[in-house]
Amino acid sequence: MTIKTNELPFKPEQPAKADIPTLPIDLNEHTITDIVHQCNARSSDVRLKEVMASLVQHLHNFAREVKLSEAEWMAALLFLTEVGQICSPVRQEFILLSDILGLSALVDSQAKKVPQGATEPTILGPFQTSDATEINLGESIASEGKGEYMYVEGTVKGLDGQPIEGALIETWETDAEGFYDVQYDGRTKADCRGRIRSGPGGVYNFRAVRPVPYPIPSDGPVGKLLQRLGRHVFRPAHLHLQITAPGFAPLTTALYFEGDDFLYSDAVFGVKTSLVLELKQIHDPSRAKELGFIRNEEPFWLCHYDLVLPTVQEAEEARQSQQPQSS
Amino acid sequence: MTIKTNELPFKPEQPAKADIPTLPIDLNEHTITDIVHQCNARSSDVRLKEVMASLVQHLHNFAREVKLSEAEWMAALLFLTEVGQICSPVRQEFILLSDILGLSALVDSQAKKVPQGATEPTILGPFQTSDATEINLGESIASEGKGEYMYVEGTVKGLDGQPIEGALIETWETDAEGFYDVQYDGRTKADCRGRIRSGPGGVYNFRAVRPVPYPIPSDGPVGKLLQRLGRHVFRPAHLHLQITAPGFAPLTTALYFEGDDFLYSDAVFGVKTSLVLELKQIHDPSRAKELGFIRNEEPFWLCHYDLVLPTVQEAEEARQSQQPQSS
Repeated sequence: MTIKTNELPFKPEQPAKADIPTLPIDLNEHTITDIVHQCNARSSDVRLKEVMASLVQHLHNFAREVKLSEAEWMAALLFLTEVGQICSPVRQEFILLSDILGLSALVDSQAKKVPQGATEPTILGPFQTSDATEINLGESIASEGKGEYMYVEGTVKGLDGQPIEGALIETWETDAEGFYDVQYDGRTKADCRGRIRSGPGGVYNFRAVRPVPYPIPSDGPVGKLLQRLGRHVFRPAHLHLQITAPGFAPLTTALYFEGDDFLYSDAVFGVKTSLVLELKQIHDPSRAKELGFIRNEEPFWLCHYDLVLPTVQEAEEARQSQQPQSS
Repeated sequence: MTIKTNELPFKPEQPAKADIPTLPIDLNEHTITDIVHQCNARSSDVRLKEVMASLVQHLHNFAREVKLSEAEWMAALLFLTEVGQICSPVRQEFILLSDILGLSALVDSQAKKVPQGATEPTILGPFQTSDATEINLGESIASEGKGEYMYVEGTVKGLDGQPIEGALIETWETDAEGFYDVQYDGRTKADCRGRIRSGPGGVYNFRAVRPVPYPIPSDGPVGKLLQRLGRHVFRPAHLHLQITAPGFAPLTTALYFEGDDFLYSDAVFGVKTSLVLELKQIHDPSRAKELGFIRNEEPFWLCHYDLVLPTVQEAEEARQSQQPQSS
């Protein structure tokens, strides 16, 4: 395929002859890899050099392994171009591509390896904001009418079981329509999101609505790829949580719920076994009233989950124990 | 990093429960790869499935091998976004990225494997047009004043040494400024490019100018990457050739010249040993005049190269003999 260019390119100065490398030119589909390695090895950026060496090796091996054709490679480049072009201040299709390839989940898990017994992290997603209101224990993060009632409760504690008081929990979720507040036009304030601090005994609790499954953006190139792969575009319902407490490692995670249609096929691979809990339906008007639910004759869902944080040092030790490895 | 989205996404229909897969959720940085494989394996597109399986495996191995951090992965995604965003109808930065990673050269060499003795192909580049004028043998493809004179000559023949008469040669090159005609504003007609047919004995010859080294576009994200890699952005001078003849395999190639500063470090890895020739400087006013050079008191460069084409069948046999292989 011919791509025309009509731009007079910027003309950089030619390098001094002494700075121009002398690489082999016995070029074929096998020798090319080492030639590129030799070319990149001149970088003074040690980490970039390491990353590029591995990337080039794997990309070249991939192209040879599947005997990638010219038409396929061109289709791939035009696909990547489309992914880039659809990105905007409010849409990040490359992160989405990384998500559906499981790369975001891999990088997240690898970077945030936690000690045995600690609550596992999972991917942040694109819907956190900086304007969630801080509420008191027991108050609601959702305005009235945003969905089925859900009561979230548990304790925040250390690996040693000691409660952590004053931990700051930030949480966000979809409403019953499957939308985050930021997805609505004319949003004036935060909704279905809030900040709350754990109290004595490490206890935390707040009112919310039961989140529902929702589709990732599927009208762009990534959506088309998923369709060709025969994959659906849904995420199971989940409640985002981000917890910080002095002396403890910060945690970004989410809770998922048993029985969700999409629990075992999250489009972006965010679900981890240890983050799945059973939502219990409670039909108890007097308890509902006591908890502050307005339509207290309706049942509500009980979401109970204890959050276990490693100390900064324990988290660091867990990370140190992880060696780079390839499978 | 948080990327905000304010778009109410298109809501596709949920799939039927029976169509929703049940994948493992014991997710960590090692298990994720097999989970993604299982997810993609449901595609009915056999080739896409094969390509994605290899791609996912290699990308995941890369991320594990270099223990890619979250910040690095985000920087990579934002880099790819920038590459996509700078693309336009007249600029293709993803092809450029592929070029400087040696992937274009790999795919080209792999797809166009030729039999021993045939002229080797090399990458097409972005500067071919459809409007080159057909000229007669001995005429000029360049208008007067575009650079130092060069006379291009040789024969077109088969692997068996038999001349090929009537082969169509399309050729294009930079002027002495290092620009192709399409890079100039206000271009009204083709220049430094032409079409010519080989004559009796397979002979071809035409007048041209000596092309010069030139930089690939370096003012975008790919240029920044090359800078961090300590790589220059130049291509050695070359003359593009595309040859077609009935019964023979079409050939896209280019000729390079000994003594070029950038011969052994082409920014896009297009040079192959067999495509390098010695340009001879001829100072012979009467011969220059005879060949049709106007400033015939000036020396001219002689570019002599024989083009050897396999038949369609010979080319097919060469391709068949190549097995997919990884190094």
